[in-house]
Amino acid sequence: MPNVKSERSKMTSQVQALYDFMGEPNTTEMSIVSGEILTLINTEIGEGWWEGKNSKGETGLFPAAYVRKLTPEESVQTKSAPAAPAPPRYDQAADSWGDVEFSAGDSNFQRGASHEDGWDDDWDDDTYSEIGPSQQQSKTQYNQQLTPLPGMPISEYSAHTEETASNYSSTVGTVRKSKFAPSSKVSGESYLLATLNVEVPDSEKVYIVQEEDRYEWWPITHPYTVTVASPKKESKFKGIKSYIAYQLTPSFNNIQVSRRYKHFDWLHERLQEKFTLIPIPPLPDKQISGRYDEQLIERRRVQLQEFVDWMCRHPVLSKCEVWQHFLTCTDEKRWKAGKRQAERDNLLGLNYCISIVVPEKALLQSQVDHITEQCHMFINSMDTSVKSVTNMCIVQTKRFQGPYKADCQKVGEAFCSLAASLSLDEGSLASTSKLTTAIKMTGSAYIDIGRMYDDQPKYDWDPLGDKFHLYKGVVGGFPDTLNTHKSAVQKKRECERLTAEGKMEVAQLNEVLRRTDVISYALLAEVNHFKSERTKDLNATMQKFLRQQVHFYKKIVEKLETTLRYYDE
Amino acid sequence: MPNVKSERSKMTSQVQALYDFMGEPNTTEMSIVSGEILTLINTEIGEGWWEGKNSKGETGLFPAAYVRKLTPEESVQTKSAPAAPAPPRYDQAADSWGDVEFSAGDSNFQRGASHEDGWDDDWDDDTYSEIGPSQQQSKTQYNQQLTPLPGMPISEYSAHTEETASNYSSTVGTVRKSKFAPSSKVSGESYLLATLNVEVPDSEKVYIVQEEDRYEWWPITHPYTVTVASPKKESKFKGIKSYIAYQLTPSFNNIQVSRRYKHFDWLHERLQEKFTLIPIPPLPDKQISGRYDEQLIERRRVQLQEFVDWMCRHPVLSKCEVWQHFLTCTDEKRWKAGKRQAERDNLLGLNYCISIVVPEKALLQSQVDHITEQCHMFINSMDTSVKSVTNMCIVQTKRFQGPYKADCQKVGEAFCSLAASLSLDEGSLASTSKLTTAIKMTGSAYIDIGRMYDDQPKYDWDPLGDKFHLYKGVVGGFPDTLNTHKSAVQKKRECERLTAEGKMEVAQLNEVLRRTDVISYALLAEVNHFKSERTKDLNATMQKFLRQQVHFYKKIVEKLETTLRYYDE
Repeated sequence: MPNVKSERSKMTSQVQALYDFMGEPNTTEMSIVSGEILTLINTEIGEGWWEGKNSKGETGLFPAAYVRKLTPEESVQTKSAPAAPAPPRYDQAADSWGDVEFSAGDSNFQRGASHEDGWDDDWDDDTYSEIGPSQQQSKTQYNQQLTPLPGMPISEYSAHTEETASNYSSTVGTVRKSKFAPSSKVSGESYLLATLNVEVPDSEKVYIVQEEDRYEWWPITHPYTVTVASPKKESKFKGIKSYIAYQLTPSFNNIQVSRRYKHFDWLHERLQEKFTLIPIPPLPDKQISGRYDEQLIERRRVQLQEFVDWMCRHPVLSKCEVWQHFLTCTDEKRWKAGKRQAERDNLLGLNYCISIVVPEKALLQSQVDHITEQCHMFINSMDTSVKSVTNMCIVQTKRFQGPYKADCQKVGEAFCSLAASLSLDEGSLASTSKLTTAIKMTGSAYIDIGRMYDDQPKYDWDPLGDKFHLYKGVVGGFPDTLNTHKSAVQKKRECERLTAEGKMEVAQLNEVLRRTDVISYALLAEVNHFKSERTKDLNATMQKFLRQQVHFYKKIVEKLETTLRYYDE
Repeated sequence: MPNVKSERSKMTSQVQALYDFMGEPNTTEMSIVSGEILTLINTEIGEGWWEGKNSKGETGLFPAAYVRKLTPEESVQTKSAPAAPAPPRYDQAADSWGDVEFSAGDSNFQRGASHEDGWDDDWDDDTYSEIGPSQQQSKTQYNQQLTPLPGMPISEYSAHTEETASNYSSTVGTVRKSKFAPSSKVSGESYLLATLNVEVPDSEKVYIVQEEDRYEWWPITHPYTVTVASPKKESKFKGIKSYIAYQLTPSFNNIQVSRRYKHFDWLHERLQEKFTLIPIPPLPDKQISGRYDEQLIERRRVQLQEFVDWMCRHPVLSKCEVWQHFLTCTDEKRWKAGKRQAERDNLLGLNYCISIVVPEKALLQSQVDHITEQCHMFINSMDTSVKSVTNMCIVQTKRFQGPYKADCQKVGEAFCSLAASLSLDEGSLASTSKLTTAIKMTGSAYIDIGRMYDDQPKYDWDPLGDKFHLYKGVVGGFPDTLNTHKSAVQKKRECERLTAEGKMEVAQLNEVLRRTDVISYALLAEVNHFKSERTKDLNATMQKFLRQQVHFYKKIVEKLETTLRYYDE
């Protein structure tokens, strides 16, 4: 496989199709056939699309994920013959844990095949341009969630956010381009049109129940927690490569597992592929290579803990197989097997709905429409608010550690300088000396308060920001969910029309209606889950935040009151 | 007399000498004779000097205060004949209170004669170029003490401070140009060289006593206070002119007098002329015309109160005649008489020392030198510190009312927007509604805290700044005092040399030595007074400031704790 980093510089212009892709007729899309060699024209289309030319000279767009880039050597070869599998990456053979190698025969089953490229990179590698479609998708999302963490240079921050802003405006508020991973696109249709019929074992079934006037996921029967603790800097190849490993301990077995960011990332992709109707909580933002700043690592740990907490509290996510595998697997062989199995999973996207068991009652479309419209409006507004809180936290941290601290220190210095001047005129008067001391202590107190401002964000603004980083991700996932649902409803209406025109059997239509209802039930359950979850969560978050703020200002009061005692009454 | 304001625009280039001035030979100074007409060349010399050309074509510098500008009409007239007295100003004839008119015969006795020009201006008139020598002197001082008051545009502030900076560097740290008012210049010599011999009535004598190892002014026997209260906007000429009058009530008679800024200004000049060895506390800074902003007026009141307090607590100043006249006179005729008397006072500058009665013991010059050197060093350092505290107060006020307030409001708005978003999804869940309310209350609390930041400076930073405005003025007066003393000591040494060379009688030298000691005693007493005064005063000031700060942060704590109660436990 091509070396990711070196390929960035010597960009090849040839790709090989890994899968068939049927371009939408009368659009700029172009159909490609697995094995076909294409010449790249433009990789800057965005949203995971590339432009290329086939051997017939036809040009068009196709998902970047459906092709793999050829090395210059391969490009030369493929001019006459189909590409041989790329040689293994130099360091992969010796990789001991987590870097599972697929046999050549496996390659047909690799949905995120190009993902293997990134597998050995450190979590803070941001070579986005080389990664697959779902990662491309994630990229957009990451950028949207990008918050400048301490130690991150401002210039990089603004560069990223600019990119974000432009990405963002094209996706939120309007209809997002739906995912084009083959699974979700194909499976959606196949589930909805009832061409997919798989027997799901009872153990894997997911129930939606009615609770008063709400529909809910069947609540968690065995609640558990997972702690993400003490990130450790580990290394391999005698220290040539080093990385951070996070120690996860689930409460249900108390067995610690070690996971790197890339494992989280892989998990996150699987979850995003599988749960189209459930917004997946975000991971911490990807970072520039080589940053192992203590504070940064701790904030990533906190954000991973937020991710893990959200997963544990979700009735569906908390018990899904890939997550359980991620949480519990300690054996390398089983890890590989589980990984392969997760990547072979067929019940992705809407197809996953085949596992969902809903109440018998058919849903009233007008009611569903009303709820989804309200949800759409709410999510749009929430998206803005959540971002505004996140930004506010970033700004406040900067203010506390910058001007607020500096101002306090200037106040302190002015008093200290006054005390120093007064001490120049210290004679025998004991009282003057006491005043000078008191003023000096006042100066020191303000300098200390400056330090307190510097130290404070980690107790209030940062945790609040981390929490809202999570909400930004979850809220940011809802438009996709809403759109997936909307498309299903449109498809349903199309089927109703077809049936009215006598082009579709009533029996099939009924199955379509039933399955659309399953999708609607799932959406309603998820909307509800988000509501009750955030109610509890925000309540706790805000209180914790306010208590820290109260504590902070109390400490200032205490400091100043102590200082007051140095003066003569 | 010329209309001050209109003359600003149509600047004439001719002036008439009001007094004789003997230029120092072999310098750029030039002698002028009362009544002589001169053509102005440069009014930007600074320090109260102007450059001009006489009828003989000679050019040179003379004190701006010794001349008066001619109106264009007068300029034309004076080309053929000596200037007639200018016509009375249109509004002076009807002026009822405080605008005392001198008869023509009085003009010889008017030391600050051109001051009459300014007499009718509002206190906030800053037409400095039209005012007399001691006012020119004050101008420098005012600028040094200039603090931007609320409502004062930044551009004006920085313009002023730039001017200040350049003025300042030329005067502090090095020897200041001594006052060139005829009285102080002449009287210093005449006192020291024992040519001045006036019998001072016992009632006007001022005593210096030894207290342990210190020399002190005889302490105040009848302490009193004066309140400066409720500035009132008054008007005359049926509202054509309006001005602010401050109500002063001394505790010793409880009779309220009404004084305008210009009265304070006149008083301040008299005090500065009279007390060369006692730094006079500063008045509030002069302001641009037409500013009657409530907050500004209140701060001027506070600064006037600081001035008055310092006066009341000073053993010498508190009982001096002009001050007593200022505090007690309610009758217009007596006011005029007292004003005239004060302006005729001959015991100005060092001549005032003739009133001082000191211990018999001759001072040890080395000891005096040691104390004055230490004082010089202390004052230099103190000048920097006091300015740094003053600036810090200005900056903190700006911060509190600007970014701190804005930041709190942004935090508040972010929470309010979150609450608004959440309310869009309010269903039947009562708990959500409670959370939304709580978050909204949190938002409001931060917006309130923003308002508290806006309001706070008037309780802590402004009073602290006002106090340090006072100290800046007093400390800024010390270099003059120290230099006056230094000159006297030099003159004494010169006399010692003259006597050694047989050019001065021993008897006369002894009187010079005695009188130099009086000057030294006065300096030591004043240095001591400043020390004990500031010790008490700063102790109270700092405590008051800190208590306000404590109160402020306690209010924040309270506000946030109240907010916390809105959340579910």
